Amino acid sequence: SAMGCKNCCSICLQCLFGYETNVMLVINNKGVGALFRLIQFLIIAYVAVYVCWIQRAYQDTDSVISSVSTKVKGNILTNTSIEGVHVWDVPEYVIPPQGEKSFFVLTNVIPTPGQTQSKCPEVRSNTSICFCESDSDCIEGQTEVHGNGVQTGHCVQYSDTIKTCEVQAWCPLENDTIIPKPALLGAAEHFTVLIKNNIQYPKFNFRKRNLLHHINSTYLKNCTFDRKTDPHCPIFRLGHMVTEAGEDFSVMALKGGIIGIFIDWNCDLDFPERFCIPKYSFSRLDNKNPENNVAPGYNFRFAKYYKNNKSIETRTLIKAFGIRFDVIVFGMAGKFNIVPTIVNLGAALACLSLVTAICDWVMLTCMKDHDQYYFNTIFTILPEK
Amino acid sequence: SAMGCKNCCSICLQCLFGYETNVMLVINNKGVGALFRLIQFLIIAYVAVYVCWIQRAYQDTDSVISSVSTKVKGNILTNTSIEGVHVWDVPEYVIPPQGEKSFFVLTNVIPTPGQTQSKCPEVRSNTSICFCESDSDCIEGQTEVHGNGVQTGHCVQYSDTIKTCEVQAWCPLENDTIIPKPALLGAAEHFTVLIKNNIQYPKFNFRKRNLLHHINSTYLKNCTFDRKTDPHCPIFRLGHMVTEAGEDFSVMALKGGIIGIFIDWNCDLDFPERFCIPKYSFSRLDNKNPENNVAPGYNFRFAKYYKNNKSIETRTLIKAFGIRFDVIVFGMAGKFNIVPTIVNLGAALACLSLVTAICDWVMLTCMKDHDQYYFNTIFTILPEK
Amino acid sequence: SAMGCKNCCSICLQCLFGYETNVMLVINNKGVGALFRLIQFLIIAYVAVYVCWIQRAYQDTDSVISSVSTKVKGNILTNTSIEGVHVWDVPEYVIPPQGEKSFFVLTNVIPTPGQTQSKCPEVRSNTSICFCESDSDCIEGQTEVHGNGVQTGHCVQYSDTIKTCEVQAWCPLENDTIIPKPALLGAAEHFTVLIKNNIQYPKFNFRKRNLLHHINSTYLKNCTFDRKTDPHCPIFRLGHMVTEAGEDFSVMALKGGIIGIFIDWNCDLDFPERFCIPKYSFSRLDNKNPENNVAPGYNFRFAKYYKNNKSIETRTLIKAFGIRFDVIVFGMAGKFNIVPTIVNLGAALACLSLVTAICDWVMLTCMKDHDQYYFNTIFTILPEK
Repeated sequence: SAMGCKNCCSICLQCLFGYETNVMLVINNKGVGALFRLIQFLIIAYVAVYVCWIQRAYQDTDSVISSVSTKVKGNILTNTSIEGVHVWDVPEYVIPPQGEKSFFVLTNVIPTPGQTQSKCPEVRSNTSICFCESDSDCIEGQTEVHGNGVQTGHCVQYSDTIKTCEVQAWCPLENDTIIPKPALLGAAEHFTVLIKNNIQYPKFNFRKRNLLHHINSTYLKNCTFDRKTDPHCPIFRLGHMVTEAGEDFSVMALKGGIIGIFIDWNCDLDFPERFCIPKYSFSRLDNKNPENNVAPGYNFRFAKYYKNNKSIETRTLIKAFGIRFDVIVFGMAGKFNIVPTIVNLGAALACLSLVTAICDWVMLTCMKDHDQYYFNTIFTILPEK
Repeated sequence: SAMGCKNCCSICLQCLFGYETNVMLVINNKGVGALFRLIQFLIIAYVAVYVCWIQRAYQDTDSVISSVSTKVKGNILTNTSIEGVHVWDVPEYVIPPQGEKSFFVLTNVIPTPGQTQSKCPEVRSNTSICFCESDSDCIEGQTEVHGNGVQTGHCVQYSDTIKTCEVQAWCPLENDTIIPKPALLGAAEHFTVLIKNNIQYPKFNFRKRNLLHHINSTYLKNCTFDRKTDPHCPIFRLGHMVTEAGEDFSVMALKGGIIGIFIDWNCDLDFPERFCIPKYSFSRLDNKNPENNVAPGYNFRFAKYYKNNKSIETRTLIKAFGIRFDVIVFGMAGKFNIVPTIVNLGAALACLSLVTAICDWVMLTCMKDHDQYYFNTIFTILPEK
Repeated sequence: SAMGCKNCCSICLQCLFGYETNVMLVINNKGVGALFRLIQFLIIAYVAVYVCWIQRAYQDTDSVISSVSTKVKGNILTNTSIEGVHVWDVPEYVIPPQGEKSFFVLTNVIPTPGQTQSKCPEVRSNTSICFCESDSDCIEGQTEVHGNGVQTGHCVQYSDTIKTCEVQAWCPLENDTIIPKPALLGAAEHFTVLIKNNIQYPKFNFRKRNLLHHINSTYLKNCTFDRKTDPHCPIFRLGHMVTEAGEDFSVMALKGGIIGIFIDWNCDLDFPERFCIPKYSFSRLDNKNPENNVAPGYNFRFAKYYKNNKSIETRTLIKAFGIRFDVIVFGMAGKFNIVPTIVNLGAALACLSLVTAICDWVMLTCMKDHDQYYFNTIFTILPEK
């Protein structure tokens, strides 16, 4: 009927435009009221100060993507009994030479020139004892983990008093028991390195590099990084970095080590781009404490290969001690985004609703005359059918 | 007037300390009550078990920053018709020698000694067919993608029956059609590698390394990693890693491949530091399935340069097959933080409020006598003005 | 007493199964109702469209872990007055040769053959002026940052008119004032590089590689990447990448530079695995703008070491200009997870509750007859005790 339809429409309209609100009860009890306002204030203060200001929880975040190139400068003159006067330049002491984000600077060297494939007595070292009395002590074809070659099965004179197993190897063998002290290239602490670092935050389409806008060519030619006077100069003295990492360069140069160059690009991109500047810090990454270290410091061996007049392959084996510098770029950028804002605001609001529950509980349990409140505010019991 | 002011103050005070609470209705209907409690229980259980216990959503997280150094040990003796007896040591078979987080161990070699800049017939290979009948088939200056040099425009005898285009190149050309089988350095599976890994979580100022506190020098000298007996030993046998990755070393050694050494530093920093220990796993990263692979396995070419007696530059080209080991460090650390806690608690609370809405709906639609509830609880319609 | 216990049990049961709901008030005011529905609609639309569809906030995320190997192909013939005809192949112009995720392709070269450790006059360069008139102008043992060696303290003839300080160094010194133009290996733009990239999302146990399933061997042999015709071919022409990065290869080849090859693996893992495909993009990472650049472009020096007939170490120093290609793999995968879903839903719900508060405020301040509403809906003042 028309009456029914009209009724139906009216209900629909009522549903659509009827505004529902909770029936509230305001209680003028100063104690509960003060508690209620205090807790409300605490939660709003937490949201304002901690979430928004300190944690910047209203921001969307992105991780840094980075590209690094490095260039070391410096020369050293050494004068040793074996090699005579020798000037070391960058292509000799920086390995690999390409200038990537991890570069190694030679500080100490044990060279073993003139090695060829042949047979010689195994060298006595601390880690592998290879003494023998007769050929029966040596096993042909055996290779020890810490040995230098493959045993031939013969026991030969190593020195006047000692016999060791003969090995097939690159002979003569390296003797690395005595490390040059002070370090041969200890003066490497005066070398400088230019670090070029380009970063981007792809989510925010943001790019920047550590050569800041206000740095010009003239400044770059003369500056070296100093936390106080030149905090934005991208040229670092090796010795300065090691000192900042809390180490002594001359000690570290002896056996090598790994230094981390940390570039922190944490940025708040709601601020102008010029406030996004890199912060540098340095620390030693390997363990200098040798208590549980099989190979303290940092070293590796490489060889230069030659052919002598008879076309036999000869090599100079170099045990290279030095400092590896790892440029580690990290950082998070934040920028205002509606999603985390809503999430954090909503969560805070939900917690505000907890306040009411707590106050109800306080009122119902701690206040006098609570029976009256009880019935007036909460329990309006309907008889069960 | 004084009266008005007093009134105004009273309203302000009332606003400031007036405690607002919702007027609640408690319905003693066992069905609805049970449903209400059940949903409440489910949500609280979800928060307690899943969010807090499994997902640790109350924690702030940080990504790992890591530094790796590696050191391979071992020697191999090979005896080939071309090179004779040769002992391979670390500086020869580990490329690059520095011991970074990605290192390559040579397992198979195709050497081409005595190359000089000159002219020679193009080598016939599977991928580039370069046959010719006369000079007109060869184009001077042309260079093919899969060729070995730049064509001179002449057609010359490659063998008694075959003619190919002459090329300007490092001659004689490499012939890589026959790969040594078994792999020349197949014994590399007995090599060991020491992996030193330092990590940090900068947000929590947490640092640790994979040489754990209880590992001493004596233990390190003799241990090798084993998932059951030595899960914390940082020395790995190459063969063991390849086996754990589900591969056969002797097969993989033929054409090379890439093995990932995964170090998982996922840590719950609410627990003491000693519970934060690395977990190692291994898997093959390249595709061994050659169906859609232009270059199955992993190989590259490098050369050793010499000058012969006449000061002409000569080189030994080496096609190096081998296994590249990529040490991949990953992990997230979590630590209690108030922001994610509030966010997750708040969200759960907001969902609890959904319960009321659901129960209202159930009550209003499914229960008998709903008309009475309807008017008593929800609708107190005010006449529109 | 039994009466008391019965009462107690009844209260407990009442607590346990008593269903609490807010007492709601529905106001049939069309203005407020419309506002109320509008805000509700906006919030629900925000959740549906922005949070769920665009930001995919219902998903848990994981960062990509990646492994890359690269292989360059191509040959170049050069004809210079110093070296004569020379064919450059991959082992010569790709440094390092291993094919890692960062590879350098030589495009221009300043060779300095025949260097030995000896003494020679310092070379005059733009950055370090080292003129002298007498020995007193030169300090023995001094090494300049931009110098090539260590001064001997003598002032010697550099040319007929100029005298410079003598240095101990690898002599003869390099003269890099004139850079070959056009670039010696400018034809490197025709080289191709095959990039093999394996990725995984450990949290979702998802692995994939950039050689997609539908790519077969035949296709790979002939394809090169093209954004329109071959967007999935993993073989890239160097010149094409540089052009896409907005640079001119022939200009860039002169002094070198760094090109980033970005592989974007952003994936929605709620969709089938075949929709997760890599997107390639290219951009220049170093600054081509030389205004505040000490070393524009990208170059480094390396040396090949020889021993001459008298067993004296000689080297060929090579100042290598070229393009470093950094393969940068990034991406986030998302997959449905209940925690972020609950968090975002809960937050949205909490915001919905704000709507009521806003409508209350609007009603109380803007509507006529607000006094009546005021007392009817909100304030039911209990007299203070």
